[in-house]
Amino acid sequence: MKKVFEIKDKRTINALLDTVEYGTLALSNQDKPYAVPVNFVRLGELVYFHGALSNKKMKLLAKNPNVSFSVVNSYAVIDSFFSSTEGLACPATQFFKSISIDGVAKVIEARDMKAKVLEALMQKLQPKGGYTPLSDSVYEKALKSTAVVEIVPSSIRAKYKFGQNLTQERFERIVTHLEERNEPKDNETIEMMKAYKDAL
Amino acid sequence: MKKVFEIKDKRTINALLDTVEYGTLALSNQDKPYAVPVNFVRLGELVYFHGALSNKKMKLLAKNPNVSFSVVNSYAVIDSFFSSTEGLACPATQFFKSISIDGVAKVIEARDMKAKVLEALMQKLQPKGGYTPLSDSVYEKALKSTAVVEIVPSSIRAKYKFGQNLTQERFERIVTHLEERNEPKDNETIEMMKAYKDAL
Repeated sequence: MKKVFEIKDKRTINALLDTVEYGTLALSNQDKPYAVPVNFVRLGELVYFHGALSNKKMKLLAKNPNVSFSVVNSYAVIDSFFSSTEGLACPATQFFKSISIDGVAKVIEARDMKAKVLEALMQKLQPKGGYTPLSDSVYEKALKSTAVVEIVPSSIRAKYKFGQNLTQERFERIVTHLEERNEPKDNETIEMMKAYKDAL
Repeated sequence: MKKVFEIKDKRTINALLDTVEYGTLALSNQDKPYAVPVNFVRLGELVYFHGALSNKKMKLLAKNPNVSFSVVNSYAVIDSFFSSTEGLACPATQFFKSISIDGVAKVIEARDMKAKVLEALMQKLQPKGGYTPLSDSVYEKALKSTAVVEIVPSSIRAKYKFGQNLTQERFERIVTHLEERNEPKDNETIEMMKAYKDAL
């Protein structure tokens, strides 16, 4: 990846992991990959997801615990004519934040840790609460029938693409076009462009 | 996957592939998976993406052409108390459309086919046009330095989860809560819940 797009700041990476609702889990089944989306939660340096005990992903993980986990927040599509005045298609792109975690998956067996992870997942996806805490004994049976998996990262790469490689002139043309187009993600995209340009 | 969530209609599947801007490509590098997001376009039964010739994904594909490609459109998070009156966390979920394509990747060498794929990608992501068509000779050099990859699917699985498995009572409670919450994706989610309930 181009150095200019690379994000190394842990707080920035964690902020994305704590905001995005799902990631795509990739596994290897012998020489064949298998990709499936899962809701997830971060606790410290680790990432957790859950599922039914008999899921295909649980069966594959039992044979090969290596995982690659991809988390994306996609922003505005940048039309080619936003930055080019020559009418070429090549500058067309999409801005995004993306995190790739390579690591090893470990099935969590301890009841209290499973409850802690599921509680954290609830707090992420349903921050307003309104449910009996997962530590309650009412969940004994549910906890037993739910698999909770921990991803221990061996590497985390983050790529945030917001035009950091562009000349000032092209950069400003994109901002002007996004302001004019004013579609749902466009304002947020301008904000990110400015934030990551300033960070250089 | 539960039968009630499974989508078999080709037009429904194609409509999602033609709307969602990116998918997550999973490859196998020996016994290690590798996941990376890519913009893509469907042409007929095939899916295409492009990238720099020297990308990590191109190097891995040269060694092992097996791919798993995951496309997701995520909808509303469904709070646990939307459907449960017992205060349990378990019913918390997120509704979504997801497609998983397993297949084999093939690098496209023919100049005209590469141009055709990139033109289709432009039409998908920049439907208003405003660029010189990819068939133009101005793109000779750009076409040579761009890798275009075709995914030939061996299986396509589609799972659309919109509460099709719920009792009428729980289903209606969720609709009422979504109407009340009225966050960005909530109305679209209600629309999908009704569409896929009726399709049963």
